[in-house]
Amino acid sequence: MNYCKLPAGVQDILPRECRILTDLKTRLQQKFTACGFQPVLPAALEYYDSYARIRNAVPQEQMFKLTDTDGKLLVLRPDMTLSISRIAATRQGLDHARLCYFADKWELQCGGDLTSREIFQAGVECLGEEGAFSDAQAIAFAAECLKEAGLREFIIDVGHVGYFSGISEECGLSEREAELLRSYVDAKDGLNAERLLEKAGAGKGLRNAILALPTLFGGAEVLDRAAELASNSRSAAAIEHLKRVSALLAEMGYDKCVCFDLGTVKRLSYYSGIVFSGLVKEVGSPLLSGGRYDFLADDFGKHIPAVGFAMGLKRILIALERQGTLPSERKPDVVVCAAGAEAAGYRTFLALASSGRNVSLSPVCGAEEADRLKAEGYTVIYEEGKA
Amino acid sequence: MNYCKLPAGVQDILPRECRILTDLKTRLQQKFTACGFQPVLPAALEYYDSYARIRNAVPQEQMFKLTDTDGKLLVLRPDMTLSISRIAATRQGLDHARLCYFADKWELQCGGDLTSREIFQAGVECLGEEGAFSDAQAIAFAAECLKEAGLREFIIDVGHVGYFSGISEECGLSEREAELLRSYVDAKDGLNAERLLEKAGAGKGLRNAILALPTLFGGAEVLDRAAELASNSRSAAAIEHLKRVSALLAEMGYDKCVCFDLGTVKRLSYYSGIVFSGLVKEVGSPLLSGGRYDFLADDFGKHIPAVGFAMGLKRILIALERQGTLPSERKPDVVVCAAGAEAAGYRTFLALASSGRNVSLSPVCGAEEADRLKAEGYTVIYEEGKA
Repeated sequence: MNYCKLPAGVQDILPRECRILTDLKTRLQQKFTACGFQPVLPAALEYYDSYARIRNAVPQEQMFKLTDTDGKLLVLRPDMTLSISRIAATRQGLDHARLCYFADKWELQCGGDLTSREIFQAGVECLGEEGAFSDAQAIAFAAECLKEAGLREFIIDVGHVGYFSGISEECGLSEREAELLRSYVDAKDGLNAERLLEKAGAGKGLRNAILALPTLFGGAEVLDRAAELASNSRSAAAIEHLKRVSALLAEMGYDKCVCFDLGTVKRLSYYSGIVFSGLVKEVGSPLLSGGRYDFLADDFGKHIPAVGFAMGLKRILIALERQGTLPSERKPDVVVCAAGAEAAGYRTFLALASSGRNVSLSPVCGAEEADRLKAEGYTVIYEEGKA
Repeated sequence: MNYCKLPAGVQDILPRECRILTDLKTRLQQKFTACGFQPVLPAALEYYDSYARIRNAVPQEQMFKLTDTDGKLLVLRPDMTLSISRIAATRQGLDHARLCYFADKWELQCGGDLTSREIFQAGVECLGEEGAFSDAQAIAFAAECLKEAGLREFIIDVGHVGYFSGISEECGLSEREAELLRSYVDAKDGLNAERLLEKAGAGKGLRNAILALPTLFGGAEVLDRAAELASNSRSAAAIEHLKRVSALLAEMGYDKCVCFDLGTVKRLSYYSGIVFSGLVKEVGSPLLSGGRYDFLADDFGKHIPAVGFAMGLKRILIALERQGTLPSERKPDVVVCAAGAEAAGYRTFLALASSGRNVSLSPVCGAEEADRLKAEGYTVIYEEGKA
């Protein structure tokens, strides 16, 4: 075993990548602050029992578990929205607030491939808010953040958990069957979906509605087609809500970057209404993911309707790289001083750094060091001191 | 058990504190960049075996341990300098670099009191550097960082591990005895120190040197007294080195905030030369801690002389609070729109936010909401849209 190796799915972030990440964070932080979001940073270690009892949250086999000195079971923060809900439900004055964060979350197994188990996210949560305008604002802000990140072309894919749930309820499916159906639809496996629906005795209209899900993708016109396909009240209410959000987004100027998608039915989780993802064609997975979760904080003891989203910063980095929009690297200039002129060199260095110039002070003195650094391509300021 | 409680020694950072921390981070990040430091972010999870074999590093009972899916033992990053040394020794081009970081480290037990087990640090490491000028630069930069953090009065306490080691070697102490003596000296327990030295057969001169350690504290004149007390070559070399560093620091303009202290003998660790701490009278523990560790990277397969330091950002926050230098809080202004004027309100909000004004958009429409927010003390911009 090579003792300098890292476990699967975790990485050291080296200077080039880290500089871009740091710059990305700074810009998003400024955006969050300007738009009225307040920062929070939840603890990275929490009790396992805090999460074990949350409905539809993180399965325990996906959490990194560890034992505290008193024998109690801990987990490494598995999800930011869970942590923020806990904080909002238990801390004074945060049940009606717009919060933002920059933090890691950890996944023991990420879809079995272990490629990324330490996930660095930036996100916002709007707590104590309801209604179409709140949802439209969250989606618009998601678009603003992707723009701020420097992405050139992206789509915000918008759906609603109520549409699929309404249809599967109408089919009379059990919770287990509904989850199975969801996985078939998600995998675009029409054959197995049809078999399951036939076995459950679903009528032709409902079967057609389910099989049509993958085609319900596009502009606002998709919502009219979706309304025709499903007549149950839950699906109808979901479509009505999406229409209001769509109208607001169009008026706010975001119709160009928003797409409706009723066929992407994510794993059941805490989402209770609108769901959305930020996508670019250069990366196969969402760069941003969010939605409404009106009942999550109930499990922490307080009802707080809420909507929010998180961005995967490493994925955004990959997207920027593939879109060719990354700034080129720049070495700092170097101040080298003559032997005996250390203090003079230091003063030159400090003055340049204070003026905003990116500059370093060499610990090695003398003209030879200056020549060596010049040969390496550095811009060198040589300080001879007093003659 | 209250499921919303957190484990001992970890905290959620709420908006007020988090805003100050974020601002502190931003300023330090700018300072690091201007002064030529490149950012890195080591993985938070590492193999236990990577650290189990490092001499004088973190005792295993102080590490949070967890088991990976393949049964291998992992630890939560116990120390930033260890991680950076590993990276510098194993990645191309980083064995001669100035690196900086912002990251958490975790301690399973922190001196038994469990008050702070998730420690957020900012730090720098100067890799591949030797000599008095390198040490003087590190100490000067530590002072610059504390100044940048907004601290009004601080002292950088400078010592050298070679001075005490030289004396205890001269006494002929075993490694275990030397560690015991160190703990007595650190606790200013002269009685037990004297007993141990007598038992070990140390001469009167050496005993006096050890007992004088707590008094070797002050300006550069302390170094002359220290030189007289210890005649062994290791202690003498340490004092010679400190004199060179002291002269450089005086010339560079840092003599006012530097104090020499040969009596603070920290737990033996990877430090091999100069050691220093940043202190303010308002906080009982160091806000900053660092030193030279020329042999640490050897254990990762490469010899890289280095010096660096880390700042505890939460401790700095406490110091700023006690010094009364924290900026006051400010709520964002709020844009409220009339029902039907959502898009107009959104445009007003976006324009204000883009101009740098800290502003939020209310998800609730109507004049009543505007009045409610005004009554809560917010500055409200009411957008009526077109009549």
